[in-house]
Amino acid sequence: MNALARHNAARQRPPAWERRVPRFLPQQTASVSAADALEGAHPLADAIVNAGLQRRANEIAAAFDTIEPELRAIASAQFEDGFVEPAAARLKASLGIDVPPETLRATWSAPLDARKLYAECVLGTFCRLVDRSFDRDLATLSEGESAQDLIRRWGFHAVDITPCADGRLSGVVDYILRVPPAVVVSRLSHAGAMFDVEDALRTWETVELRRYRESRPNPASEPTRFLKIGVYHYSSVDPDREGCAAHGSDAGRAASSLLERLDDFARAVELTHCCGATVATLLCGVDTDTDALRVHVPDASGRASVSRWVDNRALYASTKMLARDGAKNAIRDAVAACAGVAAGDRLTEGMRWFCGYLLKNNLSQMEAVRARHGGSYADRGHTERLAIVGDALDDVQLRNLAFQAQMETVEEGAADLDVGVRVLRGVHEPRGLAVPILAHFRYDARVPSARARARERALRLRDAIIARYARLAESGLLHVRAVVRGGDGAPLETVHAHAAENRA
Amino acid sequence: MNALARHNAARQRPPAWERRVPRFLPQQTASVSAADALEGAHPLADAIVNAGLQRRANEIAAAFDTIEPELRAIASAQFEDGFVEPAAARLKASLGIDVPPETLRATWSAPLDARKLYAECVLGTFCRLVDRSFDRDLATLSEGESAQDLIRRWGFHAVDITPCADGRLSGVVDYILRVPPAVVVSRLSHAGAMFDVEDALRTWETVELRRYRESRPNPASEPTRFLKIGVYHYSSVDPDREGCAAHGSDAGRAASSLLERLDDFARAVELTHCCGATVATLLCGVDTDTDALRVHVPDASGRASVSRWVDNRALYASTKMLARDGAKNAIRDAVAACAGVAAGDRLTEGMRWFCGYLLKNNLSQMEAVRARHGGSYADRGHTERLAIVGDALDDVQLRNLAFQAQMETVEEGAADLDVGVRVLRGVHEPRGLAVPILAHFRYDARVPSARARARERALRLRDAIIARYARLAESGLLHVRAVVRGGDGAPLETVHAHAAENRA
Repeated sequence: MNALARHNAARQRPPAWERRVPRFLPQQTASVSAADALEGAHPLADAIVNAGLQRRANEIAAAFDTIEPELRAIASAQFEDGFVEPAAARLKASLGIDVPPETLRATWSAPLDARKLYAECVLGTFCRLVDRSFDRDLATLSEGESAQDLIRRWGFHAVDITPCADGRLSGVVDYILRVPPAVVVSRLSHAGAMFDVEDALRTWETVELRRYRESRPNPASEPTRFLKIGVYHYSSVDPDREGCAAHGSDAGRAASSLLERLDDFARAVELTHCCGATVATLLCGVDTDTDALRVHVPDASGRASVSRWVDNRALYASTKMLARDGAKNAIRDAVAACAGVAAGDRLTEGMRWFCGYLLKNNLSQMEAVRARHGGSYADRGHTERLAIVGDALDDVQLRNLAFQAQMETVEEGAADLDVGVRVLRGVHEPRGLAVPILAHFRYDARVPSARARARERALRLRDAIIARYARLAESGLLHVRAVVRGGDGAPLETVHAHAAENRA
Repeated sequence: MNALARHNAARQRPPAWERRVPRFLPQQTASVSAADALEGAHPLADAIVNAGLQRRANEIAAAFDTIEPELRAIASAQFEDGFVEPAAARLKASLGIDVPPETLRATWSAPLDARKLYAECVLGTFCRLVDRSFDRDLATLSEGESAQDLIRRWGFHAVDITPCADGRLSGVVDYILRVPPAVVVSRLSHAGAMFDVEDALRTWETVELRRYRESRPNPASEPTRFLKIGVYHYSSVDPDREGCAAHGSDAGRAASSLLERLDDFARAVELTHCCGATVATLLCGVDTDTDALRVHVPDASGRASVSRWVDNRALYASTKMLARDGAKNAIRDAVAACAGVAAGDRLTEGMRWFCGYLLKNNLSQMEAVRARHGGSYADRGHTERLAIVGDALDDVQLRNLAFQAQMETVEEGAADLDVGVRVLRGVHEPRGLAVPILAHFRYDARVPSARARARERALRLRDAIIARYARLAESGLLHVRAVVRGGDGAPLETVHAHAAENRA
């Protein structure tokens, strides 16, 4: 079967997210049809993929939206005899999670710890959604060839994405950029997207060694490059208040700080590894109100500028009434113009193709926001459900789902964590609810004792978070769960303090 | 010039440590001659190298021993008019360090902060000795060929050493093992030598990538291996009290825990990298009373056992009366017997050569301890001058010089740091002195902004240490200096909190 046939076959089967909808989900989450988004849509918008992503978004949102009413309902019955078992059964049926019976035991003098129960349900729901294993490969087929193969054919063997930790970017891979997970070797979030250059260098080394040793994903002799994408964000509707907090809501500062960091990384690779070692970097901005992308296309010398970009809002407007081919040509022209090169320039064609690929993908997302939210999200600010710290966790993608900051310890990540806790308190405290935090570490299940070490790390991070916000934690306004995972796709395992053994 | 000629030429020049003795050093530090150690010495002991190492040890010890009497002398004059300038000049002349004038300002109501001044002088002296750049290549010429070439020819392109953080091992590279620094790609100390497997894996990846990309130190196609050596320790004189604190002074536990960790590392390399990826590991023990080595020679299958080793104390005794060739043969035989293979076995010859190389080097060290200390150190326990945390710092090597524990943050290194502070308090508090701690990070001076990031890390670590031992620090019994360094051989730079800028 060739690539096109595989593509068509994949489209004809019921999509994976329909085949796996669990029993306990409200039926309306499957009610969006591809037809909804078709009328007056942008010619390059992929209605089928959009419908799939919308179904997934609905399922995720519904799962979290169910928590509060369910808890309110059981709270009113907490003093009834034999409350615990039916309450646990109800939460299992409605949320799909197992709540430990002791969390549900209540007396008139010691009622339910509703704050903790709520945070436990949020964290449990998130973990359930991770274990649900959404099919994230919706957008991997592009023009009949797998996007991964296509990206490599255009010159990039690995993509490393560093977005801001801000929850409004927590759908950046699947929704905003629509880059296939298989090609993303690293996705680390930091406040203001201010990644660590030395860490990024180590990731590059690991990827390159695998090419030399194992020819994975391709032999080192092939002239492809490692591509690091930095993603900053801004607000078109309320630029002074809803931009990136880490950069004082100043889009220019966010862009220039990130560009400088990307340049530092590229120079670090070149200067510490001889023999023409080089990487590609790409600076992108996201308008968190519309999910529209700004792509700072590098020029012929590979240099980007903070003041030169292709704005997908303008591109959307100017190409909406065109036929597909005309719209594609317009993207190509806009990218070449931004790069300052002729459309046929060979030296820059790989990067220009990739920029066009991102812009085209993003047009679908803009179309989805237009169709669902009238072009601009009603919630411009933060409505994150939880914070994720430690190792990256990308399985469940959705705008404003989670503030996510990668760190090994609170000592190094304190500044990022403080931003996250402030944001989450703003969302939760007005409703009298606790801030739910997931402390997550991944391990390589093949490595001896790696599980035990990851468990120790997760508990250490959890303890350090509780120590830093001791007053919040004591008053029940902050709740942390430690989890570990033996690699991509493996189930999340909750780590309980008393069960921390030394060897796995 | 061939290797032998270079070897001879190097022996005829005045050695580097004599050419660079600074003015202010007491003359007696240069008084040890090679002849001192020759009478009745072991036939394989290298008297010239031993004399050089002894001179270096004397210079280091004298530098620290000068501090207390000098401070006592100036303290008695602190209330005299015009005290500051002559006192600073005296410390500059006697210790070779610049003490900030404000540290020396004293009045009858606010006398010298002698504890802080002492700690500053210890840290300043240590930094001066690092900047003094001792010639550490004393032992790199072996049998007319550079030891680095020889080690590679016998099958190892890189050596990674993990000793215990215990200060009695702070001469492990130059004195006890006598491995040339150029071949040591990593030397990370941890309490109980309990290194992090994931960190070690990253070091391996970095080393291997350089072989593939740059053929440094040799092309990846050559069948040499990365060798990781773990060094535990024990006390032959007082085994129950002066062994490794992290393992309850139990040599068997120290050895078996470390062997397990080494095996985990080897398995991690094999399991996470395909295509026959493999490393060599070697378990060694050091008797901290005599500096004698135990080498747990791996068997034909590469496996070591905690209960099978070559004991260099026995080997010293049994070979002392032999001629050089006889002694060498005895080492070879002992190693082969421990490995359980014939002397001509090809499969194991590289590792057996290396074990013999270490044992032979160590015979020189045992000879030095015999000649200088009657075979066994009088100070069996701890007399460390300072603690070093953060990145490794190996330029100044001497038994009991420094407790050294590698860590990125106190959060991850707290257990090791607690051991170090407990040990150092035991040494310093009885004399009413502060515990001096150096928080050190290295950066690659070629990488943009790496200096600024290292400075931030060093300050962060310093602040976290002070926060953890707040009461000690407030009462002046603990003093931390943050330093950074732009690579091996670069000068140490003290980082002052108020000068922390964002970009270097």
